[in-house]
Amino acid sequence: MENCVFCKIANGEIKSDFVYECDDFFIIKDIHPVAKLHYLAIPKKHYARIEQAPDELEVFRKIFKKIGEIKDELGFKNGYRIIINQGADANQDVQHLHIHILGGQNLGQKLVK
Amino acid sequence: MENCVFCKIANGEIKSDFVYECDDFFIIKDIHPVAKLHYLAIPKKHYARIEQAPDELEVFRKIFKKIGEIKDELGFKNGYRIIINQGADANQDVQHLHIHILGGQNLGQKLVK
Repeated sequence: MENCVFCKIANGEIKSDFVYECDDFFIIKDIHPVAKLHYLAIPKKHYARIEQAPDELEVFRKIFKKIGEIKDELGFKNGYRIIINQGADANQDVQHLHIHILGGQNLGQKLVK
Repeated sequence: MENCVFCKIANGEIKSDFVYECDDFFIIKDIHPVAKLHYLAIPKKHYARIEQAPDELEVFRKIFKKIGEIKDELGFKNGYRIIINQGADANQDVQHLHIHILGGQNLGQKLVK
């Protein structure tokens, strides 16, 4: 998708350090971290919301499996929080589906506001 | 798993209104909502964390597909936020994997604290 920052990272047009990469998705550090550790897992295919790509959701299984495998390597000794913002109410910032993975500190109990 | 509240809901020992149910998971309303709409999607199999059940993660694809299909029915006209707390740093409350689905209002931008 033209002018999509995550598509540009996926195709190498914007340089970024991949923490992990495979054919289906990549993991990078968020450039505006809100916790000590803040990664983004991003499917390479462009779609903004889950309901737009019902046949592409196998990527979630793959991403979650990989997170489980490399959690220690990512620094998540005491757990992590996964967040997916979808649409306006969630203040989704980039309109290319992405999964926040947060940790490295106690993240508190608030899930909104 | 004995003494697990979500296992007891899954097997009917604790009565609960299922918003949706299939062989693999169910969706209920959170009894302590933190947003106007607050659901939990819960796999029926008991495991606390993603890394404990690498062969069971197909349930994520199914859950996310279903959320996409019934989002309007759930009341998510303007989007929603998905949150999965894993372990101590995320203050995971119930040690049976569950997926928060929040919406019905603007959820703010804070993802921690």
